[in-house]
Amino acid sequence: MAQRYVRVQNPEGKVYYGLLQLSLNVQVLDAPPWLQGQPTDLVLAPDSYQILSPCAPSKIVAVGKNYADHAAEMGTPVPSEPLIFLKPPTSIIATETEIKYPHQSHRVDYEGELALVIGDRACDCTPEEAQTKIWGYTIANDVTARDLQQKDGQWTRAKGFDTFCPLGPWIVRELNPGARLQTFINDEANPVQSAGIDQMVFSPDVLVSYISKVMTLIPGDVVLTGTPLGIGPLHIGDRIRVEIEGIGRLENSIVGR
Amino acid sequence: MAQRYVRVQNPEGKVYYGLLQLSLNVQVLDAPPWLQGQPTDLVLAPDSYQILSPCAPSKIVAVGKNYADHAAEMGTPVPSEPLIFLKPPTSIIATETEIKYPHQSHRVDYEGELALVIGDRACDCTPEEAQTKIWGYTIANDVTARDLQQKDGQWTRAKGFDTFCPLGPWIVRELNPGARLQTFINDEANPVQSAGIDQMVFSPDVLVSYISKVMTLIPGDVVLTGTPLGIGPLHIGDRIRVEIEGIGRLENSIVGR
Repeated sequence: MAQRYVRVQNPEGKVYYGLLQLSLNVQVLDAPPWLQGQPTDLVLAPDSYQILSPCAPSKIVAVGKNYADHAAEMGTPVPSEPLIFLKPPTSIIATETEIKYPHQSHRVDYEGELALVIGDRACDCTPEEAQTKIWGYTIANDVTARDLQQKDGQWTRAKGFDTFCPLGPWIVRELNPGARLQTFINDEANPVQSAGIDQMVFSPDVLVSYISKVMTLIPGDVVLTGTPLGIGPLHIGDRIRVEIEGIGRLENSIVGR
Repeated sequence: MAQRYVRVQNPEGKVYYGLLQLSLNVQVLDAPPWLQGQPTDLVLAPDSYQILSPCAPSKIVAVGKNYADHAAEMGTPVPSEPLIFLKPPTSIIATETEIKYPHQSHRVDYEGELALVIGDRACDCTPEEAQTKIWGYTIANDVTARDLQQKDGQWTRAKGFDTFCPLGPWIVRELNPGARLQTFINDEANPVQSAGIDQMVFSPDVLVSYISKVMTLIPGDVVLTGTPLGIGPLHIGDRIRVEIEGIGRLENSIVGR
């Protein structure tokens, strides 16, 4: 199994980056791994930490309509360039925590996505350079208040509510280029979304290059790469699970606000 | 003159919050003032610091079409609710530094704006509560690549380039409700923008309340309150100056990228 990089907090609220061992112990690092964090002697037992989102980005840059079949289900063409938007850091939650359904919306959707974690400052990069800035991969759910997205025109409110960016559970450094992304609701056996990440219109290196020519990406920043066909509504009481082969599963429940 | 709160760095790159004295010495504080920073014995002479943006927000929440005459010049109605969007932290620059004209755009506009600095965590606030979360006031220029704003639909790229959020020069705690905002290009005597900030459609307390019901604002976060009538293009070589009565002036030059 690939090395899994986590961020956790102990009962006193102290936050650590670490390596998740098969025993579920966490081997603590002395800094974020993309800032050359090295293992320390501290090991946290499974009952002595809580898992957090695996990084704490200064910004989350997301991409719209990056799978042709999803663009089609939204009734829109595939963009000729990546269409970027931002989610605020306050939208991030960890796996196994709760998405809060806002009272302003009557239609909140899941969007399972591959997330890229930036390891190195990226400014005005070619795709080749951009590839070297991608430190690892995790999973995101780009939760969206679909009614407000349509009402506002700008997507910031619809995609920016607190808890609207589940991220995790951990980061891996390598990913099979054809890895499958699947989204499941509750205990249903059939996924509501299922696509190879190689079905993206713009690949991770192209996305990071494009973004880096607009805004400098800094270590720990996150890029969400878009969602495939099959978006749909969440309801209070649901559990939503996004899985990517070779990473793991990101699972969250929906509660009233 | 009102107390002026600055953020500066010394020649070694060490960053301080401080009080700008009439002598232009900076009396250093031991923490950001909204986190109860207290004066220390350290005083920086005018030739021993460089002024930075007066805060380093985790997010910049901006508001579109918040002056009726500006909405009209854009050919759009005044929204029935605030229309919010985000600018990335990497877009911030200090006064007296350079806005870089991106090669992707052929029409880059200034937008002079009042900026609010949040002093206290704001989540689901009424306007009355929200008013108490506003720690102070500064000036922003919501620089916008107008052609890309229209092309993309989403405003993130158009408003998110590095250097597209001049912010400063400092923060004051109180502001005359009818204070005048004026924007000047180069040495022209007549402002290209001139409006009382009381001409806003949604006032600062209403904006912060609205935003706080979507995303939690944290100390040091910044809210841009919209631009009045008179937006227009910048050209390489221009100097652009935004002034607000009772705060000061934010001045930046435009250079090629």
